[in-house]
Amino acid sequence: MTDQTRPLEGLTVLDLTRALAGPYATLLLAGLGAKVIKIEEPVGGDLARENSPYLGRDGIMVERAHEDDISLSHLTRARGKYGVSLNLKRPEGKKLFMDLVAKADIVVENFTAGTADRLGVGYEACAQVNPRIVFASLSGFGANDRSGKAMDVIIQALSGAMFTSGEPGHPPVRIGIPIADMLAPVFTVIGILAAIEQRHRTGVGQHVDVSMLGALTSFVAIENWSAMAAAGMPARTGLTVQRLSPFGVFECADGYVAVVAVHEPLARGLFDAMGARELGEDPRFANRDARVANAEVLEATINAWSRQQSVAEVCRLLEERGVPVAPVRHPEDALVDPRVVERHETMAVEHPTYGSNVDLRTAGIPIQFSAASTGFDDALPVYIGQHNEDVYAQYLGLSPDDVARLKSEGVI
Amino acid sequence: MTDQTRPLEGLTVLDLTRALAGPYATLLLAGLGAKVIKIEEPVGGDLARENSPYLGRDGIMVERAHEDDISLSHLTRARGKYGVSLNLKRPEGKKLFMDLVAKADIVVENFTAGTADRLGVGYEACAQVNPRIVFASLSGFGANDRSGKAMDVIIQALSGAMFTSGEPGHPPVRIGIPIADMLAPVFTVIGILAAIEQRHRTGVGQHVDVSMLGALTSFVAIENWSAMAAAGMPARTGLTVQRLSPFGVFECADGYVAVVAVHEPLARGLFDAMGARELGEDPRFANRDARVANAEVLEATINAWSRQQSVAEVCRLLEERGVPVAPVRHPEDALVDPRVVERHETMAVEHPTYGSNVDLRTAGIPIQFSAASTGFDDALPVYIGQHNEDVYAQYLGLSPDDVARLKSEGVI
Repeated sequence: MTDQTRPLEGLTVLDLTRALAGPYATLLLAGLGAKVIKIEEPVGGDLARENSPYLGRDGIMVERAHEDDISLSHLTRARGKYGVSLNLKRPEGKKLFMDLVAKADIVVENFTAGTADRLGVGYEACAQVNPRIVFASLSGFGANDRSGKAMDVIIQALSGAMFTSGEPGHPPVRIGIPIADMLAPVFTVIGILAAIEQRHRTGVGQHVDVSMLGALTSFVAIENWSAMAAAGMPARTGLTVQRLSPFGVFECADGYVAVVAVHEPLARGLFDAMGARELGEDPRFANRDARVANAEVLEATINAWSRQQSVAEVCRLLEERGVPVAPVRHPEDALVDPRVVERHETMAVEHPTYGSNVDLRTAGIPIQFSAASTGFDDALPVYIGQHNEDVYAQYLGLSPDDVARLKSEGVI
Repeated sequence: MTDQTRPLEGLTVLDLTRALAGPYATLLLAGLGAKVIKIEEPVGGDLARENSPYLGRDGIMVERAHEDDISLSHLTRARGKYGVSLNLKRPEGKKLFMDLVAKADIVVENFTAGTADRLGVGYEACAQVNPRIVFASLSGFGANDRSGKAMDVIIQALSGAMFTSGEPGHPPVRIGIPIADMLAPVFTVIGILAAIEQRHRTGVGQHVDVSMLGALTSFVAIENWSAMAAAGMPARTGLTVQRLSPFGVFECADGYVAVVAVHEPLARGLFDAMGARELGEDPRFANRDARVANAEVLEATINAWSRQQSVAEVCRLLEERGVPVAPVRHPEDALVDPRVVERHETMAVEHPTYGSNVDLRTAGIPIQFSAASTGFDDALPVYIGQHNEDVYAQYLGLSPDDVARLKSEGVI
């Protein structure tokens, strides 16, 4: 933490979320400066605590060996959050929750749709206690839909996102990053901040409801699929896009590169890099329309050249000529690019007690502010209920005796 | 538009953006209720106006035939925005821009890094006129980086996102939706709203700076790539994930389905649906560890069955047994799912004058508010400078004579 203020300093978030989508939303809020109180069931807690691999005194392990081994999932997603235990099914637990709601600005939950209301901790119940509360629900298909459980791969399939990737005539491609799980929380944060802005005008909060299917489908919908189909343009074009040829991914001796040489000077630059300026005079490739019409043979010509070169050599030759080019990098290489490290767009991960011989990096907050910092409080709920004292005694004002009693009675 | 208020009502955005990433950021702000003034050069304007296909009096066309044919890209991205023409290179044009800045809350630009400052319309210049301005820059690698032009495919390659998709040992996969172009604007909106929240406390604005590479790399970084590698888990597993087997995409007679049957009852449900309950007693598949160890033969067994069935039949059989399943849908089918249509997560697109015989749908705002609406003003800058009168005369208070003079002199 720098001593510069963070943009959301002063806002308090009650975090009922688990797994990935919900916790990523509250992670963003925490990194932007909100105080996030992660609420877990006293027994079990967030299931992401059980995700392999683990980090601990023996380094990285596929299976948990010690009580203080921490799942990397939990270690990265629970950063900067204050963890309390709370049994919402107990009347006294529900009362305690409502005492927290009375002091909070935001509640975020990603239970199965309808569960928060059934537990008596949904928006209506919270708004009775605190009309200023902004209550965000993140679900598969919307807060009022009972279509069932949503997982990332199910939403990728339903949204059309999966269909758009891959070679024409081949199977669809599962996108390797959990894009549906990650996108819904980003829109949830936008919804929460928009509702907070509205609260400045109206004085009251509201329910914000984001669906994984809706978030990803809206992304897919920015491309004009029906119009492209009506105009005879295919929805899936594989590694290259023929109507922009030469455009896409080409094979090298030791990997792959992405190349964009749509416009005339770029195409000429590519031909020059290939040591084949004469291609620019070849009637099949002499102008953009010709290159598009002969995309298949053009791409084969480029690949025949690039397969003889290293990735580094192709990048050097094209960069010298101002042709946009990039290596297809492994995530491990991508995460340590100095450009993203310096901007804290990726951040180091460490066990709070033990060092690691592997340089572990995770997601940061990919926004720079000129008059604010971003980053996470030095807090991590290693154990369920780790910050019970801080939250229940110091923040909420319970006596240490009451906290001890609630603990012994299994309420917290 | 309903008559319910929108969350960002009252905020004014000056929109200097072009192409996709920037205009998507201001589209989200417009749909959330901000007044967005799209500023274009008097000649040429946003290049997205020239993107094929077009919609007009003859329907959907690959090439523009009439002056009032509108690129689908422009039609969808400029919705709800007020368009003015303005030559920022002319001193009087710059003065006019600063008069707008004095009245605005937010400026968004996605020029090549450094260009806004060079034009004299960067954050520092704007803050001198209006210290409350929140100025957002969206660039390939960050506002202070000169790494060159970034396009979606270049950022996909650099971020590691492209590498994670596809079959092990096969080429990487270009993700078919422009995920880098789309993700940076979403984080830009979060940054803008966080800065507006901070402005409520401090009274001053600031510069918000989001990089396409940073936004997508931070997404990729949520997975624990280095730890998985250290634990011997592959970064790319193709259509299925063996450590969760059976999990992933399977082939049917007429398409593909996504199936999640990780846990014991789900695996049993799948075996039952296959008419092969005995697989649950087979020592190779009788428990989760066994299924993971024998993932390859298990997946082949499932595919051998599913290839004989229709997508609809597999979905029916698995849904009856509570096993998460979904068809891999074409985007055209995904965009008309009643669940996303009802929530305005996708919306109809229409030419302001001519109807269309094709049902065109585009991105909506994938957030529901209980005490606010979302949606777009009935405004679209069909022509460059279409709303010059509304903005320069009515909003800024220039006389009609001045507007006419500025027009004739090429300032607007």
